[in-house]
Amino acid sequence: MKLIRFGRPGQEKPGILLGEQRFDVSAFGEDYHEAFFANDGLRRLADFVRAQAGDLPPVAATERLGPPVARPSKILCVGLNYADHAREIGAPPPPEPVLFLKATTALMGPFDNIVLPKNSVKTDWEVELAVVIGRRASYVSEAEAPDYIAGYTVHNDLSERAFQLERGGTWDKGKGCDTFAPLGPFLATPDELGDIHNLRLWLAVNGQRRQDGTTANLLFRIPFLIAYASQFMTLLPGDVVSTGTPAGVGMGLTPPVYLRPGDVVELGIDGLGVARQEVKAHS
Amino acid sequence: MKLIRFGRPGQEKPGILLGEQRFDVSAFGEDYHEAFFANDGLRRLADFVRAQAGDLPPVAATERLGPPVARPSKILCVGLNYADHAREIGAPPPPEPVLFLKATTALMGPFDNIVLPKNSVKTDWEVELAVVIGRRASYVSEAEAPDYIAGYTVHNDLSERAFQLERGGTWDKGKGCDTFAPLGPFLATPDELGDIHNLRLWLAVNGQRRQDGTTANLLFRIPFLIAYASQFMTLLPGDVVSTGTPAGVGMGLTPPVYLRPGDVVELGIDGLGVARQEVKAHS
Repeated sequence: MKLIRFGRPGQEKPGILLGEQRFDVSAFGEDYHEAFFANDGLRRLADFVRAQAGDLPPVAATERLGPPVARPSKILCVGLNYADHAREIGAPPPPEPVLFLKATTALMGPFDNIVLPKNSVKTDWEVELAVVIGRRASYVSEAEAPDYIAGYTVHNDLSERAFQLERGGTWDKGKGCDTFAPLGPFLATPDELGDIHNLRLWLAVNGQRRQDGTTANLLFRIPFLIAYASQFMTLLPGDVVSTGTPAGVGMGLTPPVYLRPGDVVELGIDGLGVARQEVKAHS
Repeated sequence: MKLIRFGRPGQEKPGILLGEQRFDVSAFGEDYHEAFFANDGLRRLADFVRAQAGDLPPVAATERLGPPVARPSKILCVGLNYADHAREIGAPPPPEPVLFLKATTALMGPFDNIVLPKNSVKTDWEVELAVVIGRRASYVSEAEAPDYIAGYTVHNDLSERAFQLERGGTWDKGKGCDTFAPLGPFLATPDELGDIHNLRLWLAVNGQRRQDGTTANLLFRIPFLIAYASQFMTLLPGDVVSTGTPAGVGMGLTPPVYLRPGDVVELGIDGLGVARQEVKAHS
């Protein structure tokens, strides 16, 4: 199944994709939030869709898409999880996963505008495979971890490098700025995808390919990451775990390249579609 | 006004304190969440309480208290914000505020048990004055910041120091463990308090006073902190901003002292009451 949310920011309605066509499933009566995932919502939604086959209202292709999940309790990100990316920014590959939280106020739709924060000079891109949690996960084992996954989507883990690295303390000042977590275009359940550790992921700026990696190169693989994170905090249904970015970020270039107003970022992952964001100055 | 939430975890009802007496305001029909604060809930609740004077159902003193606000979008914490605390852990006073996020799954009531994470060896305490945001705050000035504050409460910013400092990456692994954000006993609106920058705050473990500070010693004061944080991310109504801890944490002692099962932590702030947590091993 492929889940979308469409409509105005903050007022999105649930939908699904069948092939390339979007359908409205508002009649199902639930947004894609914690309670939906916790209460076996994916199975119930599949039953609903089967029962309604042919009767679901279509959604225009011109409708705005929101993030494919409602605001989660947390967006937990993994840093330095591809060896080539660690190398390009001069960091050794970490002996265990690097985790950080991203403010959920950063969440936005896959085709919304990236708004550069005031005083930003180093806003950078990062294509990432994001996992959406399906069940409350606390101290789960690596073997059990796949059962806790609802699905996958595309995340642009935007970062203001000066805020992240030059302003003292943790990375959080540069990771959680508003509009810094475009998610989507859709959430795909695991059955929609092949080997999750063999997906190509890429990102282009103004048509120039900047990142081109594969999840085959993840330093820490997805079941391990879920199990690992769940040793430190409970992951709730609907939570997002973003698994790190391959090489090709702006700060890794010589000289570094950062986003400017008018730039267009496109990014995609095999089987998870393509997102596109324009960069705007803060008003 | 002093706001409480009472009842079973995850099913708390809203209440208020009048003097020492607790009253049920479930009939008001709203929990203390984002929409409550955003839609002028404090004023509307005050009107409701005035209209119901004498008719509000009392709440037994034996009822469990939950955190005085519903799960916020974020708990944003300030690190190293008292010079004596920075000194005791060997860090220079920061030139600008250190910010980090705490997973909201860590939130719990003021008298609930602290559960040591599995494999924890260095769980530490930190009494902090926490601010609850009343209005959506983005790029607010220091002069405007007080208008964005709904009230104040007591926060024990628990930390697993080994997870925080010895496991690579950011502090987040050791700050967001489940039960690591006891909040309360109540939320006090600003009019209930005197000078917010002249409050004594203290913490004792097993009856031994470990922290005894005053908000007069904050390196960065509250309006500045709110204004500063709002340059990096939007603060939503109901969000919690925790303002840092004074000297006396376990890792600052020689030799360091950490929490063990059976320990009792008590903490309080002038005008904001006293919280008490027992420490348990993970089952």
